[in-house]
Amino acid sequence: MTTATTASNSPARKDPWDLPDVSDLVVGVLGGTGDQGRGLAYRFARAGQKVIIGSRSAERAEAAAAELGRGVEGADNAECARRSDVVIVAVPWDGHRATLESLREELAGKLVVDCVNPLGFDKKGAYALKPEEGSAAEQAAALLPESRVAAAFHHLSAVLLQDETLEAIDTDVMVLGESRADTDVVQALAGRITGMRGVYAGRLRNAHQVESLVANLISVNRRYQAHAGLRVTDVQK
Amino acid sequence: MTTATTASNSPARKDPWDLPDVSDLVVGVLGGTGDQGRGLAYRFARAGQKVIIGSRSAERAEAAAAELGRGVEGADNAECARRSDVVIVAVPWDGHRATLESLREELAGKLVVDCVNPLGFDKKGAYALKPEEGSAAEQAAALLPESRVAAAFHHLSAVLLQDETLEAIDTDVMVLGESRADTDVVQALAGRITGMRGVYAGRLRNAHQVESLVANLISVNRRYQAHAGLRVTDVQK
Repeated sequence: MTTATTASNSPARKDPWDLPDVSDLVVGVLGGTGDQGRGLAYRFARAGQKVIIGSRSAERAEAAAAELGRGVEGADNAECARRSDVVIVAVPWDGHRATLESLREELAGKLVVDCVNPLGFDKKGAYALKPEEGSAAEQAAALLPESRVAAAFHHLSAVLLQDETLEAIDTDVMVLGESRADTDVVQALAGRITGMRGVYAGRLRNAHQVESLVANLISVNRRYQAHAGLRVTDVQK
Repeated sequence: MTTATTASNSPARKDPWDLPDVSDLVVGVLGGTGDQGRGLAYRFARAGQKVIIGSRSAERAEAAAAELGRGVEGADNAECARRSDVVIVAVPWDGHRATLESLREELAGKLVVDCVNPLGFDKKGAYALKPEEGSAAEQAAALLPESRVAAAFHHLSAVLLQDETLEAIDTDVMVLGESRADTDVVQALAGRITGMRGVYAGRLRNAHQVESLVANLISVNRRYQAHAGLRVTDVQK
Protein backbone atom coordinates (compact mmCIF):
# COMPACT_ATOMS: atom_id res chain seq x y z
CA MET A 1 0.00 0.00 0.00
CA THR A 2 2.61 2.50 1.05
CA THR A 3 4.78 1.33 -1.81
CA ALA A 4 1.98 1.75 -4.34
CA THR A 5 1.24 5.25 -3.11
CA THR A 6 4.90 6.21 -3.30
CA ALA A 7 5.19 4.79 -6.80
CA SER A 8 2.17 6.66 -8.07
CA ASN A 9 3.57 9.91 -6.72
CA SER A 10 6.96 9.38 -8.39
CA PRO A 11 7.55 10.78 -11.87
CA ALA A 12 7.72 8.11 -14.58
CA ARG A 13 11.27 6.89 -14.72
CA LYS A 14 12.77 6.86 -18.19
CA ASP A 15 14.52 3.62 -19.11
CA PRO A 16 18.23 4.58 -19.30
CA TRP A 17 18.64 2.20 -22.27
CA ASP A 18 15.82 3.75 -24.27
CA LEU A 19 18.18 5.58 -26.64
CA PRO A 20 17.41 7.31 -29.94
CA ASP A 21 18.07 5.92 -33.41
CA VAL A 22 21.25 7.65 -34.56
CA SER A 23 21.95 5.61 -37.67
CA ASP A 24 21.23 8.58 -39.99
CA LEU A 25 23.53 11.05 -38.25
CA VAL A 26 26.70 12.17 -40.04
CA VAL A 27 29.70 11.81 -37.73
CA GLY A 28 32.61 14.18 -38.25
CA VAL A 29 35.99 13.55 -36.64
CA LEU A 30 38.24 16.58 -36.17
CA GLY A 31 41.80 15.35 -35.99
CA GLY A 32 40.67 12.30 -37.91
CA THR A 33 44.11 11.68 -39.36
CA GLY A 34 45.59 11.01 -35.92
CA ASP A 35 45.59 7.52 -34.41
CA GLN A 36 42.62 8.01 -32.12
CA GLY A 37 40.54 9.89 -34.67
CA ARG A 38 41.30 7.44 -37.42
CA GLY A 39 40.43 4.55 -35.15
CA LEU A 40 37.07 6.08 -34.21
CA ALA A 41 36.32 6.96 -37.84
CA TYR A 42 37.06 3.38 -38.84
CA ARG A 43 34.82 1.88 -36.17
CA PHE A 44 31.89 4.21 -36.94
CA ALA A 45 32.19 3.57 -40.66
CA ARG A 46 32.36 -0.16 -40.03
CA ALA A 47 29.16 0.17 -37.99
CA GLY A 48 27.47 1.72 -41.03
CA GLN A 49 27.61 5.36 -39.95
CA LYS A 50 28.36 8.13 -42.49
CA VAL A 51 31.76 9.53 -41.46
CA ILE A 52 33.71 12.62 -42.51
CA ILE A 53 37.34 12.91 -41.45
CA GLY A 54 38.52 16.44 -40.75
CA SER A 55 42.09 17.72 -40.78
CA ARG A 56 43.83 21.05 -41.20
CA SER A 57 44.81 19.75 -44.63
CA ALA A 58 41.96 18.58 -46.86
CA GLU A 59 44.44 16.50 -48.86
CA ARG A 60 45.62 14.55 -45.82
CA ALA A 61 42.02 14.06 -44.72
CA GLU A 62 41.08 12.76 -48.16
CA ALA A 63 44.05 10.40 -48.19
CA ALA A 64 43.13 9.00 -44.78
CA ALA A 65 39.50 8.65 -45.85
CA ALA A 66 40.48 6.81 -49.03
CA GLU A 67 42.54 4.38 -46.98
CA LEU A 68 39.57 3.63 -44.71
CA GLY A 69 37.09 3.19 -47.59
CA ARG A 70 33.52 2.36 -46.50
CA GLY A 71 32.23 5.69 -47.82
CA VAL A 72 34.39 7.75 -45.44
CA GLU A 73 35.08 11.24 -46.82
CA GLY A 74 37.85 13.67 -46.00
CA ALA A 75 37.68 17.46 -45.77
CA ASP A 76 39.33 20.37 -44.02
CA ASN A 77 38.14 20.84 -40.44
CA ALA A 78 35.71 23.63 -41.32
CA GLU A 79 33.91 21.64 -43.99
CA CYS A 80 33.94 18.53 -41.79
CA ALA A 81 32.23 20.53 -39.01
CA ARG A 82 29.72 22.13 -41.37
CA ARG A 83 28.61 18.87 -42.96
CA SER A 84 28.39 16.75 -39.79
CA ASP A 85 25.60 16.38 -37.24
CA VAL A 86 27.86 15.14 -34.47
CA VAL A 87 31.47 16.33 -34.37
CA ILE A 88 34.04 14.36 -32.40
CA VAL A 89 37.04 16.39 -31.28
CA ALA A 90 40.11 14.14 -31.46
CA VAL A 91 42.86 16.70 -31.96
CA PRO A 92 46.02 16.74 -29.82
CA TRP A 93 45.53 18.67 -26.59
CA ASP A 94 48.00 21.37 -27.59
CA GLY A 95 45.87 22.17 -30.65
CA HIS A 96 42.54 21.96 -28.80
CA ARG A 97 41.91 25.62 -28.02
CA ALA A 98 43.06 27.03 -31.36
CA THR A 99 41.12 24.45 -33.39
CA LEU A 100 37.86 25.03 -31.55
CA GLU A 101 38.24 28.82 -31.56
CA SER A 102 38.65 28.76 -35.33
CA LEU A 103 35.52 26.62 -35.83
CA ARG A 104 33.06 28.43 -33.59
CA GLU A 105 30.71 29.34 -36.43
CA GLU A 106 30.84 25.97 -38.17
CA LEU A 107 30.18 24.15 -34.88
CA ALA A 108 27.23 26.34 -33.86
CA GLY A 109 24.15 24.17 -33.32
CA LYS A 110 26.14 20.94 -33.53
CA LEU A 111 26.61 18.26 -30.93
CA VAL A 112 30.35 18.40 -30.17
CA VAL A 113 31.85 15.35 -28.45
CA ASP A 114 35.20 16.02 -26.86
CA CYS A 115 37.47 13.00 -26.38
CA VAL A 116 40.73 14.84 -25.73
CA ASN A 117 42.92 13.84 -22.77
CA PRO A 118 45.11 16.66 -21.48
CA LEU A 119 48.28 14.86 -20.37
CA GLY A 120 51.91 15.72 -19.81
CA PHE A 121 54.76 13.24 -20.16
CA ASP A 122 58.15 13.02 -18.47
CA LYS A 123 60.57 10.22 -17.69
CA LYS A 124 58.23 8.86 -15.01
CA GLY A 125 55.42 8.51 -17.54
CA ALA A 126 52.16 10.38 -18.05
CA TYR A 127 50.44 12.78 -15.69
CA ALA A 128 47.27 14.87 -15.70
CA LEU A 129 47.25 18.45 -16.93
CA LYS A 130 44.48 20.61 -15.48
CA PRO A 131 43.04 23.08 -18.01
CA GLU A 132 42.06 26.41 -16.45
CA GLU A 133 38.45 25.71 -17.45
CA GLY A 134 38.61 22.45 -15.44
CA SER A 135 38.86 19.96 -18.31
CA ALA A 136 39.18 19.81 -22.08
CA ALA A 137 35.41 19.34 -22.31
CA GLU A 138 34.71 22.40 -20.19
CA GLN A 139 37.18 24.37 -22.30
CA ALA A 140 35.23 23.29 -25.38
CA ALA A 141 31.96 24.35 -23.75
CA ALA A 142 33.46 27.75 -22.87
CA LEU A 143 34.81 28.27 -26.40
CA LEU A 144 31.63 27.09 -28.15
CA PRO A 145 28.66 28.78 -26.46
CA GLU A 146 26.37 28.00 -29.40
CA SER A 147 27.23 24.28 -29.53
CA ARG A 148 26.03 21.42 -27.35
CA VAL A 149 29.14 19.88 -25.78
CA ALA A 150 29.47 16.34 -24.43
CA ALA A 151 32.54 14.27 -23.54
CA ALA A 152 33.17 10.60 -24.33
CA PHE A 153 35.48 8.06 -25.97
CA HIS A 154 38.46 8.84 -23.70
CA HIS A 155 39.54 5.34 -22.70
CA LEU A 156 39.77 3.57 -26.04
CA SER A 157 42.97 2.07 -27.34
CA ALA A 158 43.82 3.50 -30.76
CA VAL A 159 45.66 0.24 -31.47
CA LEU A 160 42.56 -1.88 -30.86
CA LEU A 161 40.25 0.55 -32.68
CA GLN A 162 42.39 0.30 -35.80
CA ASP A 163 42.92 -3.47 -35.67
CA GLU A 164 40.77 -4.75 -38.53
CA THR A 165 40.98 -8.33 -37.26
CA LEU A 166 39.06 -7.34 -34.11
CA GLU A 167 35.32 -7.74 -34.54
CA ALA A 168 34.44 -6.13 -31.20
CA ILE A 169 35.80 -3.38 -28.96
CA ASP A 170 34.90 -4.76 -25.56
CA THR A 171 34.76 -1.65 -23.37
CA ASP A 172 32.33 0.82 -21.94
CA VAL A 173 32.41 4.46 -22.92
CA MET A 174 31.76 6.98 -20.15
CA VAL A 175 29.54 9.71 -21.56
CA LEU A 176 29.33 13.11 -19.83
CA GLY A 177 27.23 16.13 -20.58
CA GLU A 178 24.68 18.63 -19.36
CA SER A 179 21.68 17.53 -21.42
CA ARG A 180 20.14 14.10 -21.36
CA ALA A 181 19.08 14.40 -25.01
CA ASP A 182 22.72 14.95 -25.98
CA THR A 183 24.26 12.25 -23.80
CA ASP A 184 21.58 9.82 -25.04
CA VAL A 185 22.71 10.48 -28.63
CA VAL A 186 26.35 9.91 -27.72
CA GLN A 187 25.51 6.72 -25.82
CA ALA A 188 23.54 5.49 -28.82
CA LEU A 189 26.49 6.25 -31.10
CA ALA A 190 28.86 4.33 -28.84
CA GLY A 191 26.41 1.45 -28.88
CA ARG A 192 26.61 1.28 -32.67
CA ILE A 193 30.16 -0.09 -32.37
CA THR A 194 30.22 -3.83 -31.74
CA GLY A 195 31.22 -4.64 -28.15
CA MET A 196 30.93 -1.05 -26.99
CA ARG A 197 28.40 0.38 -24.57
CA GLY A 198 27.82 4.04 -23.74
CA VAL A 199 27.26 4.62 -20.03
CA TYR A 200 26.14 7.98 -18.65
CA ALA A 201 28.77 9.10 -16.14
CA GLY A 202 27.92 12.60 -15.02
CA ARG A 203 28.13 16.29 -15.84
CA LEU A 204 30.98 18.12 -17.53
CA ARG A 205 32.26 19.39 -14.18
CA ASN A 206 33.28 15.79 -13.57
CA ALA A 207 35.10 15.39 -16.90
CA HIS A 208 38.62 16.11 -15.66
CA GLN A 209 39.05 12.82 -13.84
CA VAL A 210 37.65 10.86 -16.76
CA GLU A 211 40.03 12.57 -19.18
CA SER A 212 43.07 12.23 -16.96
CA LEU A 213 42.43 8.61 -16.00
CA VAL A 214 44.18 7.85 -19.28
CA ALA A 215 47.44 8.51 -17.42
CA ASN A 216 46.57 5.52 -15.22
CA LEU A 217 45.64 3.35 -18.17
CA ILE A 218 49.05 4.13 -19.67
CA SER A 219 50.64 2.78 -16.46
CA VAL A 220 48.44 -0.30 -16.71
CA ASN A 221 49.44 -0.85 -20.33
CA ARG A 222 53.11 -0.63 -19.46
CA ARG A 223 52.94 -3.00 -16.50
CA TYR A 224 50.71 -5.60 -18.18
CA GLN A 225 51.68 -5.06 -21.82
CA ALA A 226 48.00 -4.46 -22.50
CA HIS A 227 45.67 -2.07 -24.30
CA ALA A 228 43.54 -1.39 -21.27
CA GLY A 229 40.00 -0.06 -21.29
CA LEU A 230 37.24 0.03 -18.69
CA ARG A 231 34.00 -1.76 -17.99
CA VAL A 232 31.53 -0.39 -15.47
CA THR A 233 30.28 -3.23 -13.28
CA ASP A 234 26.76 -3.80 -11.90
CA VAL A 235 25.21 -1.75 -14.72
CA GLN A 236 22.86 -4.10 -16.54
CA LYS A 237 21.56 -3.51 -20.00
CA MET B 1 67.88 -14.05 -34.83
CA THR B 2 67.31 -10.36 -34.26
CA THR B 3 64.52 -11.24 -31.87
CA ALA B 4 66.72 -13.58 -29.86
CA THR B 5 69.47 -10.96 -29.56
CA THR B 6 66.99 -8.34 -28.43
CA ALA B 7 65.51 -10.68 -25.88
CA SER B 8 68.86 -11.62 -24.37
CA ASN B 9 69.73 -7.94 -23.98
CA SER B 10 66.50 -7.12 -22.17
CA PRO B 11 66.38 -7.27 -18.38
CA ALA B 12 64.35 -10.19 -17.04
CA ARG B 13 60.75 -9.07 -16.88
CA LYS B 14 58.99 -9.74 -13.60
CA ASP B 15 55.62 -11.41 -13.94
CA PRO B 16 53.13 -8.75 -12.79
CA TRP B 17 51.01 -11.49 -11.19
CA ASP B 18 53.86 -12.88 -9.12
CA LEU B 19 52.62 -11.34 -5.87
CA PRO B 20 53.72 -12.03 -2.29
CA ASP B 21 51.89 -14.18 0.27
CA VAL B 22 50.12 -11.70 2.50
CA SER B 23 47.94 -14.11 4.45
CA ASP B 24 49.84 -13.47 7.70
CA LEU B 25 49.62 -9.69 7.61
CA VAL B 26 47.42 -7.93 10.14
CA VAL B 27 45.12 -5.44 8.40
CA GLY B 28 44.00 -2.39 10.34
CA VAL B 29 41.14 -0.21 9.15
CA LEU B 30 41.09 3.37 10.42
CA GLY B 31 37.53 4.59 10.21
CA GLY B 32 36.47 1.00 10.41
CA THR B 33 33.10 1.86 11.91
CA GLY B 34 32.03 3.76 8.79
CA ASP B 35 30.29 2.01 5.90
CA GLN B 36 33.32 1.71 3.64
CA GLY B 37 35.69 0.71 6.43
CA ARG B 38 33.29 -1.79 7.91
CA GLY B 39 32.70 -3.30 4.46
CA LEU B 40 36.43 -3.70 3.82
CA ALA B 41 36.98 -5.13 7.32
CA TYR B 42 34.22 -7.66 6.72
CA ARG B 43 35.61 -8.78 3.36
CA PHE B 44 39.17 -9.14 4.64
CA ALA B 45 38.00 -11.07 7.69
CA ARG B 46 35.85 -13.30 5.49
CA ALA B 47 38.96 -13.95 3.36
CA GLY B 48 40.76 -15.19 6.50
CA GLN B 49 42.84 -12.08 7.18
CA LYS B 50 43.40 -10.88 10.76
CA VAL B 51 41.60 -7.54 10.99
CA ILE B 52 41.58 -4.74 13.57
CA ILE B 53 38.98 -2.03 13.29
CA GLY B 54 40.11 1.39 14.46
CA SER B 55 37.94 4.28 15.57
CA ARG B 56 38.30 7.39 17.67
CA SER B 57 36.30 5.52 20.26
CA ALA B 58 37.63 2.10 21.29
CA GLU B 59 34.13 1.18 22.48
CA ARG B 60 32.52 1.84 19.12
CA ALA B 61 35.33 -0.06 17.38
CA GLU B 62 34.84 -3.01 19.70
CA ALA B 63 31.09 -2.99 19.13
CA ALA B 64 31.56 -2.96 15.34
CA ALA B 65 34.17 -5.73 15.61
CA ALA B 66 31.86 -7.87 17.74
CA GLU B 67 29.12 -7.50 15.13
CA LEU B 68 31.45 -8.68 12.38
CA GLY B 69 32.80 -11.66 14.35
CA ARG B 70 35.38 -13.77 12.48
CA GLY B 71 38.13 -12.76 14.92
CA VAL B 72 37.87 -9.06 14.10
CA GLU B 73 39.08 -6.86 16.96
CA GLY B 74 38.33 -3.24 17.74
CA ALA B 75 40.64 -0.61 19.20
CA ASP B 76 41.19 3.11 19.20
CA ASN B 77 42.95 4.38 16.08
CA ALA B 78 46.38 4.56 17.74
CA GLU B 79 46.31 0.96 18.95
CA CYS B 80 44.87 -0.19 15.62
CA ALA B 81 47.79 1.46 13.80
CA ARG B 82 50.38 0.11 16.23
CA ARG B 83 49.21 -3.48 16.00
CA SER B 84 48.67 -3.66 12.23
CA ASP B 85 51.10 -4.36 9.39
CA VAL B 86 48.97 -2.71 6.74
CA VAL B 87 46.74 0.19 7.71
CA ILE B 88 43.82 1.14 5.49
CA VAL B 89 42.69 4.75 5.86
CA ALA B 90 38.91 4.82 5.45
CA VAL B 91 38.05 7.94 7.44
CA PRO B 92 35.82 10.71 6.04
CA TRP B 93 37.77 13.23 3.96
CA ASP B 94 37.15 16.04 6.43
CA GLY B 95 38.87 14.03 9.17
CA HIS B 96 41.74 12.81 6.96
CA ARG B 97 44.42 15.36 7.80
CA ALA B 98 43.80 15.50 11.54
CA THR B 99 43.61 11.71 11.89
CA LEU B 100 46.87 11.09 10.08
CA GLU B 101 48.69 13.94 11.82
CA SER B 102 47.76 12.46 15.17
CA LEU B 103 49.03 8.98 14.19
CA ARG B 104 52.37 9.85 12.65
CA GLU B 105 54.37 7.88 15.21
CA GLU B 106 52.11 4.84 15.27
CA LEU B 107 52.12 4.68 11.46
CA ALA B 108 55.90 4.98 11.11
CA GLY B 109 57.26 1.97 9.22
CA LYS B 110 53.78 0.77 8.24
CA LEU B 111 52.27 0.33 4.83
CA VAL B 112 49.44 2.86 4.76
CA VAL B 113 46.75 2.37 2.11
CA ASP B 114 44.64 5.43 1.50
CA CYS B 115 41.16 4.81 0.08
CA VAL B 116 39.66 8.23 0.79
CA ASN B 117 37.75 10.07 -1.94
CA PRO B 118 37.75 13.86 -1.48
CA LEU B 119 34.33 14.87 -2.79
CA GLY B 120 31.96 17.77 -2.37
CA PHE B 121 28.19 17.51 -2.73
CA ASP B 122 25.56 20.01 -3.83
CA LYS B 123 22.12 19.77 -5.41
CA LYS B 124 23.67 18.71 -8.73
CA GLY B 125 25.39 15.75 -7.08
CA ALA B 126 29.01 14.98 -6.27
CA TYR B 127 32.10 16.74 -7.53
CA ALA B 128 35.84 16.40 -7.07
CA LEU B 129 37.70 18.32 -4.39
CA LYS B 130 41.39 18.91 -5.12
CA PRO B 131 43.57 18.70 -1.99
CA GLU B 132 46.46 21.14 -2.03
CA GLU B 133 48.87 18.19 -2.01
CA GLY B 134 47.20 16.90 -5.20
CA SER B 135 45.18 14.03 -3.74
CA ALA B 136 44.25 12.43 -0.44
CA ALA B 137 47.03 9.88 -1.00
CA GLU B 138 49.64 12.57 -1.60
CA GLN B 139 48.42 14.37 1.49
CA ALA B 140 48.94 11.16 3.46
CA ALA B 141 52.44 10.79 2.01
CA ALA B 142 53.27 14.38 2.97
CA LEU B 143 51.93 13.93 6.50
CA LEU B 144 53.60 10.53 7.06
CA PRO B 145 57.22 10.77 5.88
CA GLU B 146 58.18 7.62 7.78
CA SER B 147 55.37 5.48 6.36
CA ARG B 148 55.06 3.80 2.97
CA VAL B 149 51.90 5.17 1.37
CA ALA B 150 49.85 3.51 -1.34
CA ALA B 151 46.31 4.18 -2.60
CA ALA B 152 43.62 1.64 -3.44
CA PHE B 153 40.04 0.44 -2.80
CA HIS B 154 38.41 3.68 -4.02
CA HIS B 155 35.70 2.31 -6.29
CA LEU B 156 34.03 -0.28 -4.09
CA SER B 157 30.39 -0.11 -3.14
CA ALA B 158 30.00 -0.17 0.64
CA VAL B 159 26.57 -1.72 0.09
CA LEU B 160 27.97 -4.65 -1.86
CA LEU B 161 30.96 -5.08 0.49
CA GLN B 162 28.60 -5.44 3.45
CA ASP B 163 26.07 -7.70 1.73
CA GLU B 164 26.67 -11.08 3.36
CA THR B 165 24.68 -12.87 0.67
CA LEU B 166 27.25 -11.86 -1.95
CA GLU B 167 30.00 -14.44 -2.30
CA ALA B 168 32.13 -12.35 -4.66
CA ILE B 169 32.90 -8.67 -5.20
CA ASP B 170 33.36 -8.62 -8.96
CA THR B 171 35.54 -5.57 -9.53
CA ASP B 172 39.13 -4.58 -10.05
CA VAL B 173 40.98 -2.44 -7.55
CA MET B 174 43.32 0.18 -8.96
CA VAL B 175 46.47 0.21 -6.83
CA LEU B 176 48.81 3.22 -6.85
CA GLY B 177 52.12 3.80 -5.18
CA GLU B 178 55.78 4.65 -5.51
CA SER B 179 57.30 1.28 -4.62
CA ARG B 180 56.62 -1.95 -6.43
CA ALA B 181 57.09 -3.96 -3.25
CA ASP B 182 54.32 -1.97 -1.61
CA THR B 183 51.87 -2.00 -4.51
CA ASP B 184 52.48 -5.75 -4.89
CA VAL B 185 51.40 -6.26 -1.26
CA VAL B 186 48.25 -4.20 -1.78
CA GLN B 187 47.43 -6.05 -4.99
CA ALA B 188 47.90 -9.35 -3.19
CA LEU B 189 45.58 -8.18 -0.40
CA ALA B 190 42.90 -7.16 -2.91
CA GLY B 191 43.26 -10.58 -4.51
CA ARG B 192 42.41 -12.27 -1.21
CA ILE B 193 38.82 -11.08 -1.57
CA THR B 194 36.75 -13.37 -3.78
CA GLY B 195 36.07 -11.77 -7.17
CA MET B 196 38.47 -8.90 -6.62
CA ARG B 197 41.70 -8.28 -8.50
CA GLY B 198 44.34 -5.69 -7.68
CA VAL B 199 45.69 -3.94 -10.79
CA TYR B 200 48.70 -1.63 -10.68
CA ALA B 201 47.56 1.76 -12.00
CA GLY B 202 50.39 4.22 -11.55
CA ARG B 203 52.17 6.53 -9.15
CA LEU B 204 50.63 8.66 -6.43
CA ARG B 205 50.80 11.76 -8.62
CA ASN B 206 48.03 10.11 -10.63
CA ALA B 207 45.85 9.37 -7.59
CA HIS B 208 43.57 12.41 -7.83
CA GLN B 209 41.63 11.18 -10.86
CA VAL B 210 41.24 7.71 -9.34
CA GLU B 211 39.90 9.18 -6.10
CA SER B 212 37.58 11.65 -7.76
CA LEU B 213 36.20 9.19 -10.32
CA VAL B 214 33.86 8.19 -7.49
CA ALA B 215 31.87 11.32 -8.36
CA ASN B 216 31.21 9.74 -11.77
CA LEU B 217 30.32 6.39 -10.27
CA ILE B 218 27.76 8.17 -8.09
CA SER B 219 26.18 9.57 -11.29
CA VAL B 220 26.21 6.07 -12.77
CA ASN B 221 24.55 4.66 -9.66
CA ARG B 222 21.82 7.25 -9.80
CA ARG B 223 21.06 6.81 -13.49
CA TYR B 224 21.16 3.01 -13.50
CA GLN B 225 20.13 2.30 -9.89
CA ALA B 226 23.36 0.35 -9.59
CA HIS B 227 26.33 -0.11 -7.27
CA ALA B 228 28.91 0.53 -9.95
CA GLY B 229 32.52 -0.57 -9.87
CA LEU B 230 35.19 -0.91 -12.53
CA ARG B 231 36.91 -3.66 -14.45
CA VAL B 232 40.08 -2.98 -16.41
CA THR B 233 39.80 -4.69 -19.80
CA ASP B 234 42.54 -6.45 -21.78
CA VAL B 235 44.55 -7.16 -18.62
CA GLN B 236 44.87 -10.92 -18.41
CA LYS B 237 45.74 -12.79 -15.30
